[in-house]
Amino acid sequence: MEPLTWVDGALEIIDQTQLPDHSLTLRLARVADLREAIATLRLRGAPALGLAGAWGTALACREAGSPLDPRYPERVRGLALELARARPTAVNLAWGVEQVLAALADLEPGRWAAEACVTAARLHEADRAAGRAMSAAGADLLRAGGRYLTHCNAGPLATSGVGTALGVFLEGHRRGLDFEVLVDETRPLLQGARLTTLELQQAGIRVRLITDSMAAFAMQRLGVDGVFVGADRIALNGDTANKIGSYGLALVARAHGVPFHVVAPLSTIDGQCPDGGAIPIEERDATELLGYGPLRWAPAGTAAWNPAFDVVPAELIQDIVTERGLLGAPFPGAIRKALAEPAI
Amino acid sequence: MEPLTWVDGALEIIDQTQLPDHSLTLRLARVADLREAIATLRLRGAPALGLAGAWGTALACREAGSPLDPRYPERVRGLALELARARPTAVNLAWGVEQVLAALADLEPGRWAAEACVTAARLHEADRAAGRAMSAAGADLLRAGGRYLTHCNAGPLATSGVGTALGVFLEGHRRGLDFEVLVDETRPLLQGARLTTLELQQAGIRVRLITDSMAAFAMQRLGVDGVFVGADRIALNGDTANKIGSYGLALVARAHGVPFHVVAPLSTIDGQCPDGGAIPIEERDATELLGYGPLRWAPAGTAAWNPAFDVVPAELIQDIVTERGLLGAPFPGAIRKALAEPAI
Repeated sequence: MEPLTWVDGALEIIDQTQLPDHSLTLRLARVADLREAIATLRLRGAPALGLAGAWGTALACREAGSPLDPRYPERVRGLALELARARPTAVNLAWGVEQVLAALADLEPGRWAAEACVTAARLHEADRAAGRAMSAAGADLLRAGGRYLTHCNAGPLATSGVGTALGVFLEGHRRGLDFEVLVDETRPLLQGARLTTLELQQAGIRVRLITDSMAAFAMQRLGVDGVFVGADRIALNGDTANKIGSYGLALVARAHGVPFHVVAPLSTIDGQCPDGGAIPIEERDATELLGYGPLRWAPAGTAAWNPAFDVVPAELIQDIVTERGLLGAPFPGAIRKALAEPAI
Repeated sequence: MEPLTWVDGALEIIDQTQLPDHSLTLRLARVADLREAIATLRLRGAPALGLAGAWGTALACREAGSPLDPRYPERVRGLALELARARPTAVNLAWGVEQVLAALADLEPGRWAAEACVTAARLHEADRAAGRAMSAAGADLLRAGGRYLTHCNAGPLATSGVGTALGVFLEGHRRGLDFEVLVDETRPLLQGARLTTLELQQAGIRVRLITDSMAAFAMQRLGVDGVFVGADRIALNGDTANKIGSYGLALVARAHGVPFHVVAPLSTIDGQCPDGGAIPIEERDATELLGYGPLRWAPAGTAAWNPAFDVVPAELIQDIVTERGLLGAPFPGAIRKALAEPAI
């Protein structure tokens, strides 16, 4: 399952809110439609959002009217930057937009639409390659007979290839290792229960679903050898924003001596962000907590606090698995060094 | 809302699986019906289960045939002990059964049915009084302007009176303190989202619902002054079994220096249980994790691990608020002393 594909001048996405029961493909030809799909999490996952930002900028180039119109460059930028704001926490979305806008900057507008597609396609292929590299580096951390835990969904549906955290499991399985993965259901939008279970089971990996609240007891009673999660934004000191629940999970992992691994491409690192305190945290509508889908179980009108992400402090992270291999403590130096190397 | 009431020779209960939308009263005249209601959590909450055990033994006395039949005592005990096994972790259910059976032991069978009702009614009134005493002791721990967090439901619906953990909030509110309560939704059966929100909002207390996975981030970003939870079984060393998620919550509370308070009547202490390792943990059907009610969101057939409780080690507990006041560390001595005093 590819979360997004460029087909004949438009972006086709799988509507992930309909999974696992319905595999519905949406064809998005306008930036506003893509923005809506991102805001409602039909398309989600940090690396996939990076590609959505890139392809969305290609859509903007087609939608902004005639390149001969002097207002064309401003229109393209306006549409693209509006898209970049669809979700504030994952840095990749804005990163994808910026990569394409930067590639266009010195070109005459008449070439923008074509060049945007070329750049997006190049980023798309680079994301695939990064996935393979991260998976290989991360799979070295697995052992036969181990039990691992993951939160939310950081698999093929969140990227363009094998995924980040789930890519590690897929690669470990490909190497013939037998292990079990405990999957946090990941309230409120249940990406773990709906998507991660699906992806791992389709690959033939042994899976048990748990509620988010069971992770600590699983570590104590069942034993867990490592936690693997993706990331939505990594600060220069290693603090990592990821799906809400990651921070608590990192704390209980630390209490049990379980290593906490973040798996993310270098594009997830925000070179402007000194530490986790500077990462904007998206707060979503309270209604997401009152039920799920058509079902409401809380009393109508109940107030809720609904941050979509939290921040794992760098000191709780064992390593950040990137396409350049493992970054370890002290993170500031390791991150600076990785960012300074030329792109793969 | 009274979770259970004895009316004209049968037990009437509110079907809590139908809350908050429907207030449905079930009339249960047979032990098997009560057992089903307990197993499916139509009736739940440790203190309320204690009363269900007591009243259920009264039902057993009416259902076991003629007291003149020499097999009558064995039939009563058989029905009552079958009821006591409906849920294994909460000690109160078995405690209620045992309290009534002990009261009958020296009486001739012809008096059992009447005496069982007298004993159950006495326990029912004692539970109400214990609730008032716990609430008063716990409310002394609250401060005006504070923010507190609770997990699952330990309010009137879980007891016969004001509740345990929620009784503390209700009493604090009655005293005129203004504070906010964050309510963990408490997957998989959502007692927090459905019941605790309802009870606190009806009382006029400020409430915000969160997912279980948000507790750590709430402590870090919003600030939390204390966690209050009930208990299903307390070992002699203070280790406390409570709704799944309590252990992880206690770990993240410790990491933030937030005091973790257990509120429970002395009947929750298991005098036969040296420590948490000896507490049986109920594992429930995997299907509870695949969705909620009529809705299924995980792929069909997904395996799950579904422990209904976990164990909070005594060293993570600030105090146990009982009808005899606060028990603090070192718990073994405090608990032994409280149990040795004559019943109130």
